[in-house]
Amino acid sequence: MSNVKPYAVGIDMGGTNTVMGIVDTRGKVVATESVKTKDYPVFQDMIEAIATTLRKLMGNVGGPQVIAGIGIGAPNANYYSGNIEFAPNLPWKGVLPLGEALYDALGIPVAVTNDANAAAIGEMTYGIAKGMRDFIVITLGTGVGSGIVINGELVYGHDGFAGELGHTRVHNGDRMCGCGRKGCLETYCSATGVARTAREFLTARDCDSLLRKLDPDKITSKDVFDAAQQGDELSKEIFEYTGRIMGEAFADFVAFSAPEAIILFGGLAKAGDLLFNPIVEAMEANLLDMWKGKIKVLPSGLASGDAAVLGASALAWKAK
Amino acid sequence: MSNVKPYAVGIDMGGTNTVMGIVDTRGKVVATESVKTKDYPVFQDMIEAIATTLRKLMGNVGGPQVIAGIGIGAPNANYYSGNIEFAPNLPWKGVLPLGEALYDALGIPVAVTNDANAAAIGEMTYGIAKGMRDFIVITLGTGVGSGIVINGELVYGHDGFAGELGHTRVHNGDRMCGCGRKGCLETYCSATGVARTAREFLTARDCDSLLRKLDPDKITSKDVFDAAQQGDELSKEIFEYTGRIMGEAFADFVAFSAPEAIILFGGLAKAGDLLFNPIVEAMEANLLDMWKGKIKVLPSGLASGDAAVLGASALAWKAK
Repeated sequence: MSNVKPYAVGIDMGGTNTVMGIVDTRGKVVATESVKTKDYPVFQDMIEAIATTLRKLMGNVGGPQVIAGIGIGAPNANYYSGNIEFAPNLPWKGVLPLGEALYDALGIPVAVTNDANAAAIGEMTYGIAKGMRDFIVITLGTGVGSGIVINGELVYGHDGFAGELGHTRVHNGDRMCGCGRKGCLETYCSATGVARTAREFLTARDCDSLLRKLDPDKITSKDVFDAAQQGDELSKEIFEYTGRIMGEAFADFVAFSAPEAIILFGGLAKAGDLLFNPIVEAMEANLLDMWKGKIKVLPSGLASGDAAVLGASALAWKAK
Repeated sequence: MSNVKPYAVGIDMGGTNTVMGIVDTRGKVVATESVKTKDYPVFQDMIEAIATTLRKLMGNVGGPQVIAGIGIGAPNANYYSGNIEFAPNLPWKGVLPLGEALYDALGIPVAVTNDANAAAIGEMTYGIAKGMRDFIVITLGTGVGSGIVINGELVYGHDGFAGELGHTRVHNGDRMCGCGRKGCLETYCSATGVARTAREFLTARDCDSLLRKLDPDKITSKDVFDAAQQGDELSKEIFEYTGRIMGEAFADFVAFSAPEAIILFGGLAKAGDLLFNPIVEAMEANLLDMWKGKIKVLPSGLASGDAAVLGASALAWKAK
């Protein structure tokens, strides 16, 4: 058993922070540290910063020789190539050899995937999807991402970019999306989409609302949630609207891969019944009869602070 | 090598005919026969008719001992259970133990799947998808079916019913579907959907058209194709309309599984440029930038008479 390495590294690279963690085989984060992504406008400097931080963290548990691998979840990262490709929310432009650069710096096997896929692997390995072979994770953040698992395997597609469900079009949707197209799911159902709906509703109506006390340009999905919790009718309606659009989209996703569950991940997923009730209602109304009452919609089963790091670390065990 | 059985049986069960074929390892149909499905209102009689016909066919090539297995593609058939479940277009109601009944009758391993999945397996084994690990087959017939292959494996989903892409909703679609929902892809893009568009266009406009010579209630997609081939403008427009809706839907399918190709199967797929040009144009206009120019849209690579039997037979080699 001396060959079995008891730890893996998980890295969650985001536009603001890059969080690194050392995780044991049971999914316990035993050490963690982070650096500010934006402090490193030169990509190679970021790699050095990660390597330096990891050397320190690994030193705490017994050095690189006890590390099975490094898994990284990053926006627009490609599993096949190990590259980040044209990520709009990271400081570096073009195609960046993330996996290769980190392997060169540390000599430990590295596996790369996008952040939503890392979340799906995390749910399958340590979270609410343990034991499931067919499910979809939807990440609700600045955008809407997705990680799809079929037959127990993550779906990468022929080019490594599968699972862009945030960029499927919603029924009758016409909002402009950052991708240049119209009506994408993420223009309605991301955290920023919820804030956009709030601004639209506030302009279109003249009803009272707690949200009117806020600067409309600065309203966040959290503000809408807080107001809804206090009984604000307009805010509750914003969640109903968001949930209905999501539920209709979910019915189409079910027609594709017949998942056992659709799992919501990210800040908005904590909105609970406010969001889940309209999602389930709209999904059920739009499912083919044979699926009615059979598809679960669940919140993430991972502790929010560690979720992305855990997901990335789960990928690390298979890194080569 | 005496254990290697050189033949498989493929069965294509449809609402009208049930075609049986004996296929060799290279995908050559060496013997074929069919019975009329509607002649057997009692399910067990149908099983007996298939068994009797197969005994005769198998006798021609060396008897049951040279047959590796039987594969059946049938509407609403479930790979996991081997049952046909609530098929609206077959003479028998409820849940029918197709795989079990045929195994009991013949003692040869049987594998069951739905007709669109059989087509996908056929394309992968003998057709245009040979060597592809990620593709989608769309069957265009009375309805629209689909067989999805990811990582070289057919997608069955958690319950065996995945791949109902004909029942995803098209953008702004509102036609009533036989499934009880509105705006399903198959209400626009099946052969019957094309005929429905023809009737709608003929009613809504007063332009000249070759189609006006026909009884509107009896117009078929073949009539529209023939008229378009003769230069009929309205008929060409019907294909453009159908293709645009299909192309928009395909862009969403690509966002799900990033397939290398989408393959069209069935009579309508023979419409050639009339249908493929507007499909590709609309798909490209709706794809995320990273996929533009990279996803193939292809016609089936299987000879039409044998396609469904070949697809079912391909499943038979793995039957247990």
